Amino acid sequence: MNELISRYQQNPILTPADVIPSRPGMVVECLLNPGAFRFGGKTGLLMRVAERPAQETGWVSTPLIDPQSEGGIRILRIRQDDPDLDCTDPRTFKYKGHSFLTTLSHLRLAWSDDGINFRVDEKPTLLGRGSHETFGIEDSRVELIEGRYYLTYTAVSEFGVAVGMSSTDDWVHFTEHGNIFPPHNKDCALFPRKVNGFYWALHRPSGLDGLGGNYIWISRSPDLLHWGDHRCLATTRKGEWDSARIGAGAAPIETSEGWLEIYHGADAHHRYCLGALLLDREDPTRVLARSGAPLMEPDAAYEQKGFLGNVVFTNGHVVENDLIQLYYGASDTVICGATLSLKDILGTVPR
Amino acid sequence: MNELISRYQQNPILTPADVIPSRPGMVVECLLNPGAFRFGGKTGLLMRVAERPAQETGWVSTPLIDPQSEGGIRILRIRQDDPDLDCTDPRTFKYKGHSFLTTLSHLRLAWSDDGINFRVDEKPTLLGRGSHETFGIEDSRVELIEGRYYLTYTAVSEFGVAVGMSSTDDWVHFTEHGNIFPPHNKDCALFPRKVNGFYWALHRPSGLDGLGGNYIWISRSPDLLHWGDHRCLATTRKGEWDSARIGAGAAPIETSEGWLEIYHGADAHHRYCLGALLLDREDPTRVLARSGAPLMEPDAAYEQKGFLGNVVFTNGHVVENDLIQLYYGASDTVICGATLSLKDILGTVPR
Repeated sequence: MNELISRYQQNPILTPADVIPSRPGMVVECLLNPGAFRFGGKTGLLMRVAERPAQETGWVSTPLIDPQSEGGIRILRIRQDDPDLDCTDPRTFKYKGHSFLTTLSHLRLAWSDDGINFRVDEKPTLLGRGSHETFGIEDSRVELIEGRYYLTYTAVSEFGVAVGMSSTDDWVHFTEHGNIFPPHNKDCALFPRKVNGFYWALHRPSGLDGLGGNYIWISRSPDLLHWGDHRCLATTRKGEWDSARIGAGAAPIETSEGWLEIYHGADAHHRYCLGALLLDREDPTRVLARSGAPLMEPDAAYEQKGFLGNVVFTNGHVVENDLIQLYYGASDTVICGATLSLKDILGTVPR
Repeated sequence: MNELISRYQQNPILTPADVIPSRPGMVVECLLNPGAFRFGGKTGLLMRVAERPAQETGWVSTPLIDPQSEGGIRILRIRQDDPDLDCTDPRTFKYKGHSFLTTLSHLRLAWSDDGINFRVDEKPTLLGRGSHETFGIEDSRVELIEGRYYLTYTAVSEFGVAVGMSSTDDWVHFTEHGNIFPPHNKDCALFPRKVNGFYWALHRPSGLDGLGGNYIWISRSPDLLHWGDHRCLATTRKGEWDSARIGAGAAPIETSEGWLEIYHGADAHHRYCLGALLLDREDPTRVLARSGAPLMEPDAAYEQKGFLGNVVFTNGHVVENDLIQLYYGASDTVICGATLSLKDILGTVPR
């Protein structure tokens, strides 16, 4: 195991059993990929809760948000031997030429005094709303900018996978800001402050038909709502651990040497590891340095087996001086924590 | 043939033979998809000129923009029997897991006093510049907004297919504005004026892996540079002429009944036709009506045979009272013109 990372002995710190389903008949299959923040002296996690109906032998069923159905949910139920059904990835299936997710995700808060022991709210915090979130919302990053918390998340629907945003200052009342990046896009992390007169975001638009790839891009905004001057910041690396896809984690961390971004990379076998990028402090479109070897790999048993094994994926951390408390999804099934030293990570990024 | 459309008897009005190649050794393969505008009493077309080296038997070769090579161009040359080469689409090929375009496009002006007879500038107007346009720039829409011409175009590179923007007020000096939409995106048409306090654009982000599709989206902006509140406006229609992909043409035309947008749609066989959408005048995110049958189909011989046959594709028009002068690419090879009556088109859109 990598000695830079100190996993919590209590891992996993949150599992599906800790969560009351959003509706009767639903099962929480996965609890994963939390955004993290400090509020009112506590550590908050905005977790992704992935649910579906209890699966019956011979059937595949998944919930879809549908305001016209009773309870706002419609169940799509298909016989497993239906020749129009194609399910090879645990996360998605295809039916009659359309793709669906196997689970429906919402976002839910958990609170802690010590950053390790969390109490989960009994009800969802944010559910998918409107026509562009009918397949749910996922993997929220949370960032405090000028006194307000901004939540960016993956918004999934029949129209595609986009980046939605909401904001709050009390974690009770939320303002919706619509989609800030159009499809196919996810993994959006906002910078904590303006740089050179603009707000900045990292995000992951996908290429198509071999033109482009699953790369990290950077964009700027005058108001956090409207984004432009999109540029590719970092690409996948052939033959490396991050050969198939890369995406930003939580917000870049400001250091004297530049903006440190902990990102995820996956190879063709969907093995997800973490690495680091260092961006110029005054011009974040300039990459100063990048990890060679992964900073963190799926080494622990709970990171290797689950809904999607061999996955460590982070989109939330709390930073205090040199200490990073990193929260991450393991095997797309449970939530774990680890601590890292900012100095140690900077030491691994060759300049 | 559709009686609503009156094709120019002089069609095609511009062909590759009318264009001096940008460099010795280059051949203009296709002249297509012009943006159109009025300036100084003339009609201007900002055409897409697609070039490649003269093809030698047994070889495939394509130019790439490379500032470090002599003349700013590098030729990629591959033996046709190379087992790593895959070329089934005339527009693209794959080599060693990467995709390339078979031609390199730049934008070039042509001018006319009567809208039919055009003189082509001897030199390129805009060439791909920087790392995000190394595979060229394509299919420019031109729109006059508050006294300045805004050019949106497809910017292609190894980083993907994005929407770039430049502007000019004299067609001599241009300002680059970078990418206004990240990959995979094209077919961006700006509205001619602010509506409800915002600028608006239609564009075509693509979905991935069956989530989403090739649909028209609408977005708003405070400054034309930064865009947000992205929403899907119209999707493809199963079993119809626009079943595989749809994308905006030139700028929406303001009418008393709403914004009229002439768009292209293609089926799985890459047969491109034109249709119309009518959007609410005060809230352009609302679709009031849409064509059933195509407004225009590839009926003429020059629309059925060429570099990519069975294609009519428009991204430029000039409107005067009831008369639309429509410019379009035919078979991805030549430029043609047609006239339509605004009233007639509105009559085909059921409300």
